[in-house]
Amino acid sequence: MAVSNIRYGAGVTKEVGMDLQNMGAKNVCLMTDKNLSHLPPVQVVMDSLVKNGITFELYDNVRVEPTDTSFMDAIEFAKRGAFDAYVAVGGGSTMDTCKAANLYASNPQSEFLDYVNAPIGKGKPVSVPLKPLIAVPTTSGTGSETTGVAIFDYEHLKVKTGIASRAIKPTLGLVDPLHTLHMPGQVVANSGFDVLCHALESYTALPYHMRSPCPSNPISRPAYQGSNPISDIWSVQALRIVAKYLKRAVRNPDDLEARSNMHLASAFAGIGFGNAGVHLCHGMSYPISGLVKTYKAKDYNVDHPLVPHGLSVVLTSPAVFTFTAKMFPERHLETAEILGADTRTAKIQDAGPVLADTLRKFLFDLNVDNGLAAIGYSKADIPALVKGTLPQERVTKLAPRPQSEEDLSALFEASMKLY
Amino acid sequence: MAVSNIRYGAGVTKEVGMDLQNMGAKNVCLMTDKNLSHLPPVQVVMDSLVKNGITFELYDNVRVEPTDTSFMDAIEFAKRGAFDAYVAVGGGSTMDTCKAANLYASNPQSEFLDYVNAPIGKGKPVSVPLKPLIAVPTTSGTGSETTGVAIFDYEHLKVKTGIASRAIKPTLGLVDPLHTLHMPGQVVANSGFDVLCHALESYTALPYHMRSPCPSNPISRPAYQGSNPISDIWSVQALRIVAKYLKRAVRNPDDLEARSNMHLASAFAGIGFGNAGVHLCHGMSYPISGLVKTYKAKDYNVDHPLVPHGLSVVLTSPAVFTFTAKMFPERHLETAEILGADTRTAKIQDAGPVLADTLRKFLFDLNVDNGLAAIGYSKADIPALVKGTLPQERVTKLAPRPQSEEDLSALFEASMKLY
Repeated sequence: MAVSNIRYGAGVTKEVGMDLQNMGAKNVCLMTDKNLSHLPPVQVVMDSLVKNGITFELYDNVRVEPTDTSFMDAIEFAKRGAFDAYVAVGGGSTMDTCKAANLYASNPQSEFLDYVNAPIGKGKPVSVPLKPLIAVPTTSGTGSETTGVAIFDYEHLKVKTGIASRAIKPTLGLVDPLHTLHMPGQVVANSGFDVLCHALESYTALPYHMRSPCPSNPISRPAYQGSNPISDIWSVQALRIVAKYLKRAVRNPDDLEARSNMHLASAFAGIGFGNAGVHLCHGMSYPISGLVKTYKAKDYNVDHPLVPHGLSVVLTSPAVFTFTAKMFPERHLETAEILGADTRTAKIQDAGPVLADTLRKFLFDLNVDNGLAAIGYSKADIPALVKGTLPQERVTKLAPRPQSEEDLSALFEASMKLY
Repeated sequence: MAVSNIRYGAGVTKEVGMDLQNMGAKNVCLMTDKNLSHLPPVQVVMDSLVKNGITFELYDNVRVEPTDTSFMDAIEFAKRGAFDAYVAVGGGSTMDTCKAANLYASNPQSEFLDYVNAPIGKGKPVSVPLKPLIAVPTTSGTGSETTGVAIFDYEHLKVKTGIASRAIKPTLGLVDPLHTLHMPGQVVANSGFDVLCHALESYTALPYHMRSPCPSNPISRPAYQGSNPISDIWSVQALRIVAKYLKRAVRNPDDLEARSNMHLASAFAGIGFGNAGVHLCHGMSYPISGLVKTYKAKDYNVDHPLVPHGLSVVLTSPAVFTFTAKMFPERHLETAEILGADTRTAKIQDAGPVLADTLRKFLFDLNVDNGLAAIGYSKADIPALVKGTLPQERVTKLAPRPQSEEDLSALFEASMKLY
C-alpha cells in the first residue's frame, strides 16, 4: 500500500527547478507533446530550470495514446542523453512515456518486453534504481503522476498493455490547477470520466485478501492489489469530489475552485486505483479505443481518429456496475448515494440498477454520446471487442465477479445505447 | 504533502527479511527496547533476518521516552556498525531513536544540534541520503512509522523537542496487528488517545495557506505544514476509526478486528499529523510529562515516574478545543459528530463546548484520571507548565488561534479537573 508524493497548489510548477536542484540533478530530460511544447505549462517549467541553472534537453515527440514505437523513440532519446532526472509535462501519455524512458534508460541492457505486463511481456520485477522523475499533469484524469503504471498500444498485437511497477512511480507530482484553466469543456468531461471510473472500479475491485496468486516475496506482488483500507479512502474521496465539482468544472473554464478540486481528485483517484487496480470499464475500454474507425472527438487536436480514453471507459460503466453489483452490492449502493442517488428506500439487490441509473443520468446531463453505437460500433463489432478485452486479464481479473466471453459480449451489447 | 509507505496485515512482519534483501541490505541494525527484546515481535523479525541470510546486530538499549543522551548512545552504536539498513521494532521511542541513529550515522560529521528543531537546535535541512529504515510498530498510537519526526527530552533544558524532516521518514512501515493483541488495556487506551489527538489537532490545525513564513525553496518547508486537503482525509478517517473501535480495543485484548483497526488508525493519523502538524494538546503535553513528580501509570513496566504520552496529551483536550473552536467552529462540530455527539440542533457558536463535552464523556467512559490534579499537579505548578510550553512554538504556532501566556495558563487551569 505504497502511496505517492504530490505537491498541490496554484503555481507549484514554478518550483520544479528548485526541486531538481535539491535532488542534485544537473542534466535533465524534459518530456512533453508537440501541442503543449509552446504553451504556458512547459514555458513555466523551462523558465524555472533556466533560473535554477539546470541544463536540460527538450523531447516534445510524445504521441497522444502512445505505442511501443513511440515509447522506443523516447527511450532512445533518454539513453543518448544520459540524464540524471526527468520532468514530464502533460497528460497520461506524456507521463507514461517518461516513466518508460526512465525505466529503460536506467536498464540499458534490458529488452523492451522484459518489463511489459505478462502475458504479452515478461513482467519482470524492477530491481535497479531509476532516476528521479517529476510529473506535472496538465489534464485532470489519468492520475499518472501518482501511479506506477505506463500504458501503451502494442502495435503488433493491436492491444493496449502496459508496464506496472512501483519503481516507475514519479518521485514527485506537482499538481498545479493553473494548468487546467484553459482546458476545453469536452476534455475536462472526458478526463473527469476517467477519474470517475478509477474511483468506482478501484472501490469495487476484488478485495486484496481475495486476490490470487499471493506471491510470498513482496517485490513480486502486483501494483494492482485489489481494494484495501487505504485505497478505499482515496477512491471514496475522489468520487465525492467528482460528484460535487465535475459538472461545474466542465461548464466553466474559469471556475478555479471546481477545476482545482478536479485536479486534486485526479491525483486522489490515481493513488486509489494505483494501489487497488481498475477492472472491467478499463479492461473493455482498450479495444473500444484501439478499434476506433472514424470517430474524432471534438476539442481534441489530433490528426487521427480518436476515442478519448475517459469516454471509452465510461460508456460501459452502467452495464459493468449492473453486472458487478451482484458481488458487494453495499459498496455499489454507497457509490450511487455519493453520486447523488436517493438510496433511502433502495433494496440492496437493486444496487446495480440504482448505480447504473445514477451514472446514466450523470452522463446524460453532460451530453455524453449515446453509447457505443454513437461512436461508430455495431453488434457486428462485438466479437472483436470481446477478443480485444481478453488479453486485459491483468485488470479484468480484479473485477469482483468473474466474466465469461458471453458475459463480456452481453456487457458490450448493453452498452450500445445508454439512454 | 508527502505520504508514506506502509504494508498492513496480520503477519506482515515476517516479510521483513525479504524486504531487506530486496533493498540489497547485508548488514542491518535491529533496534528495540529491553522489554521487547525477548518478545515475539522482535523474535519474528530476527527469524526472518536469519532465514533470509541477513547479518544483523541487535541494539536493545532504547529508552522509553528517549533523551539526547539515549539518542547519542544509539547514534554511537549506529556509527560503529556501519549499517546499510535499519529495522526498528517497538513504539514511538524506538522508531524515533532509530530515525536519529540513521540520520547521524549517515552524516557522521554533523553536530547533534544541527538537525534539532529551532530554536533549541539549528533545524538544518537534511541533504544527504539516509539508509533504508523499516519500522515495525508494536503500539497503536504514535504513528511514527509514517512520520519524519523524532521526539526526545533535551535534558539540559528539561524540554521535549525533536528532529523533523521528511528525510528521516521510514522507508516502509510494517503495520502488523498481531503485535497489538497482548497490549494491556491501559496501554491501548493511552496510545489511542494519542491517535485521537493527532487526528483532532491535525484536522483543526491552521490551514496550510495561512501558515507563515512560507520558504520559497520546498526543501526548507517544515514537515508540519498546516491542515490541507490530503492530511484532512487521513485525520478524519483516523477519527472515525477511533470513534468506532477504541473502546472495544481497550476492553478486549482478543478483539482482533478492533485492535487491527486501531493499529491502522494510528498509521492513518500519523500520515495526517505528519503532514499537517499537531498543536496545543501536544505542545502542552511536553511539560506535563516532563515535570512528572511521582505518577506512575499502571501497566507500564518502567522504573521511573511516567505520564504516558497519550495521557499527557488528552487531559488538556477539552480545554484546548473549547479554546480553538472560536476559529473554524464547523470543523470542531464535525469532529464532535464523528465522535458520537448529536449535533443536529447544536449552534455553531457552541462547537467548542459540544466537542469538549463529547471528549469528557469519551474519557470518563474509559476511566481516565480526572484531569491534571489526578496525576499530581496543582495550581502552583501552572507557571512551570506554561514555561515548559513556550519552547514548543514549532507546534503551538500551528494552533488555529494564537495564545498568550495567560491563555496557556487558563488552559492548564481548566484541565485540572475534567468531570
